[in-house]
Order: sequence, then C-alpha cells, then structure tokens
Amino acid sequence: MFPGPLGISLAGRGLRVGLWSIEAVQIRDFATDKHRSVDDTPAGGGAGMVMRADVIASALDSVAPGRPILAMTPRGKPLAQDRVRQLAEGPGAIILCGRFEGIDERLFEAREIEQVSIGDYILSGGEMAALTLLDACIRLIPGVMGAPSSGMDESFETGLLEYPQYTRPVEWEGRTIPEVLRSGDHAKIEAWRRQRAEIDTRSRRPDLWERHEGARIQSPSGARRRKQDDTK
Amino acid sequence: MFPGPLGISLAGRGLRVGLWSIEAVQIRDFATDKHRSVDDTPAGGGAGMVMRADVIASALDSVAPGRPILAMTPRGKPLAQDRVRQLAEGPGAIILCGRFEGIDERLFEAREIEQVSIGDYILSGGEMAALTLLDACIRLIPGVMGAPSSGMDESFETGLLEYPQYTRPVEWEGRTIPEVLRSGDHAKIEAWRRQRAEIDTRSRRPDLWERHEGARIQSPSGARRRKQDDTK
Repeated sequence: MFPGPLGISLAGRGLRVGLWSIEAVQIRDFATDKHRSVDDTPAGGGAGMVMRADVIASALDSVAPGRPILAMTPRGKPLAQDRVRQLAEGPGAIILCGRFEGIDERLFEAREIEQVSIGDYILSGGEMAALTLLDACIRLIPGVMGAPSSGMDESFETGLLEYPQYTRPVEWEGRTIPEVLRSGDHAKIEAWRRQRAEIDTRSRRPDLWERHEGARIQSPSGARRRKQDDTK
Repeated sequence: MFPGPLGISLAGRGLRVGLWSIEAVQIRDFATDKHRSVDDTPAGGGAGMVMRADVIASALDSVAPGRPILAMTPRGKPLAQDRVRQLAEGPGAIILCGRFEGIDERLFEAREIEQVSIGDYILSGGEMAALTLLDACIRLIPGVMGAPSSGMDESFETGLLEYPQYTRPVEWEGRTIPEVLRSGDHAKIEAWRRQRAEIDTRSRRPDLWERHEGARIQSPSGARRRKQDDTK
C-alpha cells in the first residue's frame, strides 16, 4: 500500500533522493494470540470488527517517539491546509490507519493521538486517507516539486479558494481569456484575481467565506479594509 | 497511478472479479502540437502551468457519454457521503484529474462538469483525490466488502459521527469497556450509542451538528422528537 502512488512522479523522485521517507509497521506483528488477531467483534454487538487497543498500543509504543501520532478516522478533526503545512515543517509523524469498524476507543484515552479526518465520507480504511495526507505534506517539502511553488496563492492558503486560471489559446470555442489578464497591468491583474477569489469563495463555499470574514474582523487592519468595502 | 492502491485488498479482488472497472485516458494523446503539450503558462502571469481547455475538452469528448463528469479540484464542492452513495449506485463517472495550477476555467463553462473537492487542503494533483473518491464509492458496491456492511450506522450516514467502538479485552490498562455494552440489553445499547454519537458530533463537529439539527426541525417527526428532548 505504501508508498503506492507516492512512489511515482515528483513525490517518487523525492523519495528516491531522500527528501522524505516512510516506514511501514505491520500491526499484526504485535498480536499476542496464536492467530495473530488484531481485531475482535464490537462490544455490544453490531457488524464488522474493531481493532484491539492492546495490540495497536504495542505497535505504536514500538515506534520512536518525538513525533505526533495521527489516527485517520472519520470521527477526527477535518484536515485543513494549515495543519498540513505544520506537519510538512515538523519532524514527521506516526500515522495509524484504522480498518474495519474502527479502533477501540480506550486507545484514544490512553495515548496522545490526534484524530484526523480527510473529509465527510467513509473509506475502506485509513490507508487511502494517509496517502492523501502524505501527498499534501510531501508536495510542500522543499525540493520535491522543483521550484518553490506559488504556495500562498493557492486555495486555502489565504483562507479563500484560488482564483480561476486561463491559458492559451486566447480564443477557444468562442470564449476568450478575460481581457484584464492580457493587459500586462500587474496591479489590475492582482485586483481582478483577488476579487474573483472572493466572489467564488462567497458563492461556492459560504462556510469558508464566513470564517475568512470573521478572521478579518478580528484583525484591526482587516476591520479597516472591511469598512472600506462596505462603503463602496 | 490507477488502480494503484485500489488494485489490492478487497477493492482489488472486486476489480479482478469484475464488480467494478476503470479505464485511464491519456490526455497527452489529445495534444495537437508536436511537443504534445497539455499545459501552458497562466494568462496574466504567475508560477506553474495551467492545463489547456482545448486539449482536455478533446479528451473528455472522446469518452462515451451518459455518465457524470467530475473534476477533482480544491475549488469544487466538498465531497460528502450522500454524493458518494449516489455515485456508487449510478452508471459510473468520468473523472478528470487536474495537475499543476489547475485547468483553464473556460472548460467548466463549455462542458457540464461537476467540480469536486475531497477536502480543504492542496494535493500534488487530482489523482490522489480521484483514488480517494473511488475508494469511497467502490466499498459501497454490493459484493466488494463481503457481507453488506453496517452501512447506516457509520459516520455521516445518519448525519452524525459514529459512536465509539470497543472490543476485547474487557479490561486494558485499567480501563474497562462501558458496562452498558456488556449488558446484553439491546435497547439500552442502542440508546447509549445514539447518545454518544450526538455528544461526540456536538463537541467535535459543531458544523455537522448544526446541519443535523436543522434537518430535524424541518421534518415533523424530528420536531416532535426534539420537543421531547427539550423537556427532559
């Protein structure tokens, strides 16, 4: 499963030249019975199997500490770009991938584990969620994507969706690239992009827009800027 | 890249026995210049490259219609379990994976394309997002995960996070499985699970809780239930 899709393309090149690394731990090696069980039936009944706290704890305890332990679970905190950036700049992470119906809840009481969700949908297991988290982090590691990316322009880095992009041909199926983008006037282009980012965020993601406006009101310069907008 | 991690485990078995299938289209085959370019520099300047509307449109137009076209992009609508379920029950989908700084916006004006985001973070490309979407859909296809799953108990299927799970051993590091789960009283167990799902959703995901409460108020039976709660 690992590195899986991260073993190819730019992430794969980064792995081969040592810009990042990954080590898989086989949880089954920490089972204590002769069947090497890592799971058992849910207490209280129900379908599926639940991963055992004792076996998972042994597996986690076997890994060198000093890095945050993340568990990929739909019950976790929604992953966002600011946490991705922290993780990419940090010492690495220990990522626990649940399978089946989840992990015995006592594990989360007994160990310091950050529960992370990549979105409001259910996956077959935590591995795909871990691959997604890793991909988001790895692309931020200096050198992996070549030139330092346009980072701060991208969706979520400013708390807004990114502005729409255009490229050649200038005309396609009767549609032309917006004139301002062909003007060469960098200030106008920047203003247009900012405005489009705001318009698209407001219409597509009112939840993001509300959070963004809240953050602006809290900073004095943001409040000033907002007041000017209101008088337009 | 495809089927990648979906070629192993239960999804992989489902693929081999024909429960689902995937076909990759090489966008580069639809380039029209001698360098087979699929991208060009952003109109108006900026880092990175933008995928060309004309080339992508040709690639999309080459695929048999009758299925929704999804584009994986952080500017899209956040993926949620209800859309996953619709897609899993539908005729399949055409999934467009952007790379670089995105796709020329005119494509989205000229073709009927559903823009989908798997979360508020940036990936190296749309492929990992597509793999995640596919994983979520494939596990719902009858037969893939073996016995029909506990489906409706899981996080998001009820609009709530799933309740916490426990399994043997009964005692671990001084912590015991909650007594109610060992009582054998199915009505009590169900009530406890429902309550824990509500408590955890309210504290961890106030956004989900608010939406859930809104939905209950709109349905008469939900309103009745809510009134009873209030008089407790």
